[in-house]
Amino acid sequence: MSELTDPLLVINFKTYLESTGKRAVELSKKIETVGKTEGVKVAVAPQFCDLEKVATSVSIPVYAQHVDAVAAGAFTGHVLPESVKATGAEGTLINHSERQILLRDIDKVVERARSAGLTTVVCAGTSKQAGAVSSLDADMVAIEPPELIGSGRAVSKENPEIIKDSVRKIRMVNQKVRILCGAGITTGDDVYAALQLGSQGFLIASGVVKAPKPEDVMVDFCRAVRRFVQGGRV
Amino acid sequence: MSELTDPLLVINFKTYLESTGKRAVELSKKIETVGKTEGVKVAVAPQFCDLEKVATSVSIPVYAQHVDAVAAGAFTGHVLPESVKATGAEGTLINHSERQILLRDIDKVVERARSAGLTTVVCAGTSKQAGAVSSLDADMVAIEPPELIGSGRAVSKENPEIIKDSVRKIRMVNQKVRILCGAGITTGDDVYAALQLGSQGFLIASGVVKAPKPEDVMVDFCRAVRRFVQGGRV
Amino acid sequence: MSELTDPLLVINFKTYLESTGKRAVELSKKIETVGKTEGVKVAVAPQFCDLEKVATSVSIPVYAQHVDAVAAGAFTGHVLPESVKATGAEGTLINHSERQILLRDIDKVVERARSAGLTTVVCAGTSKQAGAVSSLDADMVAIEPPELIGSGRAVSKENPEIIKDSVRKIRMVNQKVRILCGAGITTGDDVYAALQLGSQGFLIASGVVKAPKPEDVMVDFCRAVRRFVQGGRV
Amino acid sequence: MSELTDPLLVINFKTYLESTGKRAVELSKKIETVGKTEGVKVAVAPQFCDLEKVATSVSIPVYAQHVDAVAAGAFTGHVLPESVKATGAEGTLINHSERQILLRDIDKVVERARSAGLTTVVCAGTSKQAGAVSSLDADMVAIEPPELIGSGRAVSKENPEIIKDSVRKIRMVNQKVRILCGAGITTGDDVYAALQLGSQGFLIASGVVKAPKPEDVMVDFCRAVRRFVQGGRV
Repeated sequence: MSELTDPLLVINFKTYLESTGKRAVELSKKIETVGKTEGVKVAVAPQFCDLEKVATSVSIPVYAQHVDAVAAGAFTGHVLPESVKATGAEGTLINHSERQILLRDIDKVVERARSAGLTTVVCAGTSKQAGAVSSLDADMVAIEPPELIGSGRAVSKENPEIIKDSVRKIRMVNQKVRILCGAGITTGDDVYAALQLGSQGFLIASGVVKAPKPEDVMVDFCRAVRRFVQGGRV
Repeated sequence: MSELTDPLLVINFKTYLESTGKRAVELSKKIETVGKTEGVKVAVAPQFCDLEKVATSVSIPVYAQHVDAVAAGAFTGHVLPESVKATGAEGTLINHSERQILLRDIDKVVERARSAGLTTVVCAGTSKQAGAVSSLDADMVAIEPPELIGSGRAVSKENPEIIKDSVRKIRMVNQKVRILCGAGITTGDDVYAALQLGSQGFLIASGVVKAPKPEDVMVDFCRAVRRFVQGGRV
Repeated sequence: MSELTDPLLVINFKTYLESTGKRAVELSKKIETVGKTEGVKVAVAPQFCDLEKVATSVSIPVYAQHVDAVAAGAFTGHVLPESVKATGAEGTLINHSERQILLRDIDKVVERARSAGLTTVVCAGTSKQAGAVSSLDADMVAIEPPELIGSGRAVSKENPEIIKDSVRKIRMVNQKVRILCGAGITTGDDVYAALQLGSQGFLIASGVVKAPKPEDVMVDFCRAVRRFVQGGRV
Repeated sequence: MSELTDPLLVINFKTYLESTGKRAVELSKKIETVGKTEGVKVAVAPQFCDLEKVATSVSIPVYAQHVDAVAAGAFTGHVLPESVKATGAEGTLINHSERQILLRDIDKVVERARSAGLTTVVCAGTSKQAGAVSSLDADMVAIEPPELIGSGRAVSKENPEIIKDSVRKIRMVNQKVRILCGAGITTGDDVYAALQLGSQGFLIASGVVKAPKPEDVMVDFCRAVRRFVQGGRV
């Protein structure tokens, strides 16, 4: 597997109690262990208050769930990209379906995050939106149909067209951006199907965080990734 | 001085670089030292990413600058009151002029923050708004005319009426809420004047954070508080 | 019945197709006719695009459903209070549960609307919020628990406490403001019950607009008002 | 000049008093007269409350300044695309710099407006944003650097690169969308320069509305359009 194109699994901790505070650290360690054992790239996106203790406890990439379109200054209650970077985090989600921002601010935040040294993952809810945000030079685009988020019905099975169509629309304007998908992913088969449709990674939340044994689900996901990488590329 | 009514100085770190990351901890320690030496109650409000390292480094109250009106769940990029509490922080600002929220959400956040064990400081920009938020059962109300924030022209000198009028409006509906004021406070005289007008504490940002020697400004403020407490109450 | 204290029925047209365009005029005429015949004060709140043709077709008060906190100037897509006044409308709803605004903007809009000569009806979702907005000098406050809006379960029966509690909280700070209530009102009995609890009028939408025969519902509501006024005050 | 590619001048009335109420009708008539006399396509975008009386007074296209991403239903204070259409208006601006909306909502509004029979003009503040919104299938895209809006410094002279770059980015994803530009346009020379850079029309506000004699400015603009069309295409 090569550094640039290996599928990436990003686990979004949202504001679930199962992934808040000390449990954010414990869950991150489990995810890290599976990723290392299985040889698959993984990352975690904890809450702001947990970023530093997670980033100092694991060596996988840590992402914020959002940053604001602000520079240092008089912006009470905002999330300064530089403050995220100072925790040891490497990147940030932007415009998640549950934390949407203005188009102008997506544009600004991608620039601000980059200037702070953060990797950017911009979320989109439809293939048109995925095409749109690909014009904004993010490092990754994540397609998540909002109606499937948390549903347990996998985007790769319920709506395979949105992945294919997003890949096509995105590649018209941007050859480099990494394409993630998410929403309803709960099994290795969901993962495998999405990779076949052109996805290069995943943004996953409840499928892991709310699972009785998150490590088991991670193993299932990682093995699907390896199966695809070995089969699909040799 | 009594525990309940002693004036309180809350220093809001905003997203100033001078108070981000490690410098948030250093500044908090300076503020704590002056508070202890001078015998005046002080608190700090760092950014989300810095809450835990500040809260574990000092023993003064630490407040968040904002929390969201959400419960644990699928709320990517939001600030869960429980996650703030888990850092060791004791309270939170709400509805700061630079991070305003819907009236409904002020109502909700006060309840959510309280149920998470956080002290609440709701901000207001006019005396009418101060009266309004006093109906929402926060622990403190902070009056800051937005046009004076960061101006260096103290609210207690430029617009003493707003403090008197706010105190009057607030007390019509709420006898217990602690009344803070802020905006443009840069000298001990500004502090003293506000206390005479009925303020029971302060929300201060650039006056301390952007000062060449924040500890000197803190000493000046704290001595004004002591002068008022000793003179005014004996 | 006296001009100032007679109960007032305000019918909110929302963006229902049944009350859009020409049908806004037709419905307003029906409402006007019942109001006159039954001797009860009624008003309508059509969409922005329909304000002028309604206001020139009936002689009852016409309200906008919202105005923005802006003055004349470079504010594309905003609703200038003066432009509403120019249609012949007399007032405006503010901060409806479906069009909530910042606390600061409620404060501003009440002033802007008044300076444009518009009567103001500020909405609140809880008794605490009702108390809060009463500090902002609106002409009327409308209490509508959002969970009951459009439910067909009347606020006056499902949650009579919220009306009583709101009346109490509002009168602590404001003796003059007219108190409306709404949410789920579908029968004359709902109206009568709310008047007994201290309501001085109603904000009603689907109960009238979506009724098979809106005029029949209006008759039912108006007779309940008359029954209360005659019984309650003699 | 051909119907499809003739440059189009859209005059945005914002919430200027000079273009509110009756003055909206008067100004629209002046703009219509110049357009007819000079043989140039013109359109106007008045406030919501003025749409119907303008649309029934002139025969040029009338656009709303904004519509909301809602369908008919319980959406108090929102602008239903169908209610705009019912006034006789033909189209709408979307996401103007002064009335920005979420990326998701731009996507939705374009669809909702089209299903109501409205022409869509989506605004963008940078060339990247212009590229982005071109993925969303609007009929027109309008590029307006916010810092030049109302400045009197024309985008076509201050920042010609943004027009060229936008045209290039837009055409990568969308061959059909009409490209407008705006911001700071006050003379025929500004208009001519923008047409040379690839603009196919204009979104203009203060340059016309706030002019002492709007009809003179319109004549100047229209003659620049004719000069370009005749020179550039013969």
